[in-house]
Amino acid sequence: MQKVISSAVIKRLPRYYRYLDELRKKDVVRISSKELSEKMNVTASQIRQDLNNFGGFGQQGYGYNVEYLYNEIGKILGIDLPHTVIIIGAGNIGRAIANYDDFLRRGFQITAIFDVNPELIGSEVNGIRIQSMEHLREYIEETKPDIAALTVPKEQAPSVAADVTAWGIHAIWNFAPTELFLSGDVVIENVHLTESLMRLSYKIRAQKQKQDEE
Amino acid sequence: MQKVISSAVIKRLPRYYRYLDELRKKDVVRISSKELSEKMNVTASQIRQDLNNFGGFGQQGYGYNVEYLYNEIGKILGIDLPHTVIIIGAGNIGRAIANYDDFLRRGFQITAIFDVNPELIGSEVNGIRIQSMEHLREYIEETKPDIAALTVPKEQAPSVAADVTAWGIHAIWNFAPTELFLSGDVVIENVHLTESLMRLSYKIRAQKQKQDEE
Repeated sequence: MQKVISSAVIKRLPRYYRYLDELRKKDVVRISSKELSEKMNVTASQIRQDLNNFGGFGQQGYGYNVEYLYNEIGKILGIDLPHTVIIIGAGNIGRAIANYDDFLRRGFQITAIFDVNPELIGSEVNGIRIQSMEHLREYIEETKPDIAALTVPKEQAPSVAADVTAWGIHAIWNFAPTELFLSGDVVIENVHLTESLMRLSYKIRAQKQKQDEE
Repeated sequence: MQKVISSAVIKRLPRYYRYLDELRKKDVVRISSKELSEKMNVTASQIRQDLNNFGGFGQQGYGYNVEYLYNEIGKILGIDLPHTVIIIGAGNIGRAIANYDDFLRRGFQITAIFDVNPELIGSEVNGIRIQSMEHLREYIEETKPDIAALTVPKEQAPSVAADVTAWGIHAIWNFAPTELFLSGDVVIENVHLTESLMRLSYKIRAQKQKQDEE
């Protein structure tokens, strides 16, 4: 039995998780939905609703047990299990990801980096050797990585995505600013930086409009 | 008069914009909400609802004029006007952003990069010289950039954000994996890469569960 969870809820879960992690590091044992809501800038009823999607976890009047809730959200997010990640494209974004140590703390281990550029092949990023794209198929078929981070230019992204999913990749973390259309059992998470900047631009405009009206 | 637009709608607008841009480049003049919905993986009624937030733009039975809708969404997003962007932190992510040419096409011009590392200061990224953080205040006060991209380590992010907003920055594009609490007239857009990976992990888990049940 699987409930359909809205993407807005899924978007908030990692934030709850990160914040609960900070609380447990400060040895906080319990937290009320009211306190959680003040810190997270979400209403208390929103938090209760969100967590009710997964069966609650709270006890009326007692708040949430921080460690328990942290672990349960971790399970929902699937990060109670480790994931292997390969990076395809050793340009700036690929290198940035390879150097981002925060991922490992959440169980995402970068195991390989691939590029077509002969000048990059053989050099290392954060201790990981850049391999030729010619070895990509063999690597995927032999090691079955959980996730492929796609940091190739936009023009190459659709064909690379088609290749790696044909070779056995089931999850794509896409940094190319283009829509990828893949078969139904492949999951995708897009990081569209230009879209993020546009949302910021929207907020700037909305804020100015608000100030003009005051 | 300003309507409150939900963050889910704001999240979809840049996707509409990007897709309409592709259509106009292919000289498509009109599109129905049905066609738009098939391409965007959103229901047609969702599209009509989203665009009704801003006054509609469509005519029953005639669909949308691509060029007109593209321009109107551009205005809503505030990208009919150019923005200047400074990058604070010339590490991997800062460099990745400085090299990302897609931003300029949307009117986001990166005008300066700052770092504390003496070994980086004076070198160039994509034609932009890395300056010392000592010049940051003067630069902000004199040139009044629209946006500061924060690509410093997580530990430094809150104090750097407090500084730059005190010096006149009103919009922060935050790449540090931490929550920033700033005064009410400062707008923030967060890019939390670890959260994005966790959402992908959630989708992997949900997909596996679905397959196990079939």
